[in-house]
Amino acid sequence: MGKVICTGLGPGDPDLMSVRSDRAIRGAAHVAYFRKAGRAGQARQIVEGMLAQDVTEYPMEYPVTTELHFGSVEYKAALAEFYDAWADRLAAVAQDSDVVVLCEGDPFFYGSFMHLHSRLQGRVEVEIVPGITGMSGCWTATDQPITWGDDVLTVLMATLPEEELAKRAADSDALVFMKIGRNLPRVRRALEAAGKLDRAWLIERGTMPTQKVMKLADFDGEVPYFAIVVVHGQGRRP
Amino acid sequence: MGKVICTGLGPGDPDLMSVRSDRAIRGAAHVAYFRKAGRAGQARQIVEGMLAQDVTEYPMEYPVTTELHFGSVEYKAALAEFYDAWADRLAAVAQDSDVVVLCEGDPFFYGSFMHLHSRLQGRVEVEIVPGITGMSGCWTATDQPITWGDDVLTVLMATLPEEELAKRAADSDALVFMKIGRNLPRVRRALEAAGKLDRAWLIERGTMPTQKVMKLADFDGEVPYFAIVVVHGQGRRP
Repeated sequence: MGKVICTGLGPGDPDLMSVRSDRAIRGAAHVAYFRKAGRAGQARQIVEGMLAQDVTEYPMEYPVTTELHFGSVEYKAALAEFYDAWADRLAAVAQDSDVVVLCEGDPFFYGSFMHLHSRLQGRVEVEIVPGITGMSGCWTATDQPITWGDDVLTVLMATLPEEELAKRAADSDALVFMKIGRNLPRVRRALEAAGKLDRAWLIERGTMPTQKVMKLADFDGEVPYFAIVVVHGQGRRP
Repeated sequence: MGKVICTGLGPGDPDLMSVRSDRAIRGAAHVAYFRKAGRAGQARQIVEGMLAQDVTEYPMEYPVTTELHFGSVEYKAALAEFYDAWADRLAAVAQDSDVVVLCEGDPFFYGSFMHLHSRLQGRVEVEIVPGITGMSGCWTATDQPITWGDDVLTVLMATLPEEELAKRAADSDALVFMKIGRNLPRVRRALEAAGKLDRAWLIERGTMPTQKVMKLADFDGEVPYFAIVVVHGQGRRP
């Protein structure tokens, strides 16, 4: 009887995954990962060159991504069916052998694997290997500490209503906005309302060779969904 | 001319540091780390068995920890002098050779190294290797995801006033309280006021062999400063 091992891959640079994830991935006979249909998939790309020659790969292709609103009944039903089916399939593979699931960032921090994790409870052993979060890769890329002393840090999804983003932006010392993409104008307006636009940084692909670090106030254009906006805390420093 | 490389060590299990930190530490000729005077130091303990035979070690011993209040003039002056002196010393070592600074968790997330980082700007090249945060080690230890869907996550230092802790506890989906120690009763009362005590977990030494994971409501006793309290989000899940 094997187990399902979910390995956090960290922010994107393969050198930034943990020693344990690195070892599990290189030694894996079965590797599964999420991706958008028709794409190579970011998780799979991070481990390029690390997999064993005779590995069996299980690309888990989301049935929908942004075609339907995530609040719709159709979206929820399609995703539930997708996670149900893959939980069954991974549990079946794990009857005979370990299966390694690749997860960008840190699996228990806004990761997709948690939807399989909940469905696998009581059926098969599941091990989680934490990872460096994407947001950590991004604040490290700015070369400035995100939090000092007693700073309060708030992590917000840019999909939230603008009014809520603005209220929370005003009320926190340090800020991280995730899931940016087409929500960028809303984040910009919320930070402007909170008087913090001048302190905001926009980071794309933090720690990867194609990394971009920009002041948000100077930026005009489109960014990917996985771009991150940070506002550094200004707390106590001796 | 060398550089100062600050390596994030992650939450405590040496297997959970990044491949890059692992490599830098094993290959280092000069290694510096913070510790309380008279103690082995948590950072140094994590790398036990990894250092080269002929490594030169630089224990950076805090002149004060909890003897003075962190808001006092004396505390600030003692710490400023301490960081000034070590910035000078590390910059001098880096004239000839790389020097690796060991930092628990993720260096730019409430880490002490940032006080050296700011003092080394323009004097010597500084490289930061991010790490898995201690809080990630702790929520992974609970075997439950910390955030789902659009959950808002707030990270709070338990040193803040109780009223502020209670207000923020009520106002966030997922919560992390750090720097617990003797502030535990205050965190407990704040969570009770927010109606979230029953959902709170207390974790000591997450990912280490001596790890403890307890429901906060069931716990009665003392905990170390680096214990963490988490409340998991309950967000959207298909």
